[in-house]
Amino acid sequence: MTKNRPIGMFDSGLGGLTVMQQLVKTLPHENIVYYGDTARLPYGGKSRETIIRYSIENAIFLIEKNIKVLVVACNTATSQALDKMQQIFGLPVIGVIDPGAEHAVETSSHGRIAVLGTRGTIQSEAYQKAILQRSPNAFILPIACPLFVPLVEEGCIDHPATRMLVREYLMPLKDQNIDTILLGCTHYPLLKNLIREEVGEHISIIDSATSCAEKVAVLLDEMNIRKASTPPLYQYYVSDDPHKFQILGSSFLGMSIKGVETKQ
Amino acid sequence: MTKNRPIGMFDSGLGGLTVMQQLVKTLPHENIVYYGDTARLPYGGKSRETIIRYSIENAIFLIEKNIKVLVVACNTATSQALDKMQQIFGLPVIGVIDPGAEHAVETSSHGRIAVLGTRGTIQSEAYQKAILQRSPNAFILPIACPLFVPLVEEGCIDHPATRMLVREYLMPLKDQNIDTILLGCTHYPLLKNLIREEVGEHISIIDSATSCAEKVAVLLDEMNIRKASTPPLYQYYVSDDPHKFQILGSSFLGMSIKGVETKQ
Repeated sequence: MTKNRPIGMFDSGLGGLTVMQQLVKTLPHENIVYYGDTARLPYGGKSRETIIRYSIENAIFLIEKNIKVLVVACNTATSQALDKMQQIFGLPVIGVIDPGAEHAVETSSHGRIAVLGTRGTIQSEAYQKAILQRSPNAFILPIACPLFVPLVEEGCIDHPATRMLVREYLMPLKDQNIDTILLGCTHYPLLKNLIREEVGEHISIIDSATSCAEKVAVLLDEMNIRKASTPPLYQYYVSDDPHKFQILGSSFLGMSIKGVETKQ
Repeated sequence: MTKNRPIGMFDSGLGGLTVMQQLVKTLPHENIVYYGDTARLPYGGKSRETIIRYSIENAIFLIEKNIKVLVVACNTATSQALDKMQQIFGLPVIGVIDPGAEHAVETSSHGRIAVLGTRGTIQSEAYQKAILQRSPNAFILPIACPLFVPLVEEGCIDHPATRMLVREYLMPLKDQNIDTILLGCTHYPLLKNLIREEVGEHISIIDSATSCAEKVAVLLDEMNIRKASTPPLYQYYVSDDPHKFQILGSSFLGMSIKGVETKQ
């Protein structure tokens, strides 16, 4: 029965677990298969061709697990490869960018939005285009923050060096009257407190994870394939060391991770 | 003729170009084929199994280019996969760790040596074992510095945040009377000035690149396959975007890079 088939989701590594955390909150009964491509992470600085190839391989792995929808829980993969996956595969494929852009436009009081992301995501202009589609007069300030991912992965989420780099990356916000910051990378929610301390209370800080989870819920209802009861089953696969993923992943997921397997 | 066959070398990305720089200085006539596995970098945090698989694939690619010796210009790949490659392949395979350890032991006045490297290199204990083999009474202080590679790749080689992290990573040196620091990662020579400013003039700071190049020279002479004249030919291959490698690589190589091709 389709309802019991799992939601499949992938990311280059751990970051997508912040999206899974929101999915679990929004859809507490759904079975989920998560795949982290840890042997080839990070995707952020790599070329479009390489990211498309990796994304297609990851999607095929998950489709073979009999998933009912595919969530691309990686901003870089969404920005470079979502169209291609939607074109190739015969199941709904949802990324993190459109829901995030929609949320930013709804939240922004004066249409002045800063988008933070990896270099790949920012250069792809996917967020910029998605925001302008919804709000053609928006002012958008795109900022690549390539050191945030390694800092988060090293657990430096309140380190003075991280604070210094947050301040530096956010310098262009000065005098731009930005009202909304969109965190366009799944790792960045872990730096939300530090960013909040730097920019003050008057700017809204949003991320794509919550809105992505809501979009998945709407889609499942529309297709009448939402699983409504029985406890959920979570499965985790990685392409590199499962032990490391299990240890580090819980701070991204907000709960402990059990039974991580290696992709064969 | 064997003498004219190129030296093959690989690294996960750009870092090995600091080794190539020394090879070019020591052996100015040799043809060199460099392969940077940029689609799968970094190797530093990945598992032994994955690094062995990647190293073997890289080596085969280079051997098919008719190389006469293989230089593993990557500390992580040397620490995890050198033995395996020496066992499998029918040509001399030289890593960066043994030459670096030898140089450290020769340089150290009192046998108190700090080794800096990625988490993978430090956890492998390859440098520690190589030093103790040559100097069983040496005191070794191993320090993993996982943020140095992303900081160098972002060009933050004299950034205050980098200085702060250098200070923090080198904190364990305090009161240990270390006389020699061995830079056990090909990216770290670019931070040598900053490290020098932190530790002062009384500590020797050495890296593996120079000693590796000398070892290759000795080997070529022993085997009588050193190319003595005619201008050298340098070829570069990468697994991801050749343009980015060409732009960023010159600061690692110390000269401009021309004609980077993508591995098919």
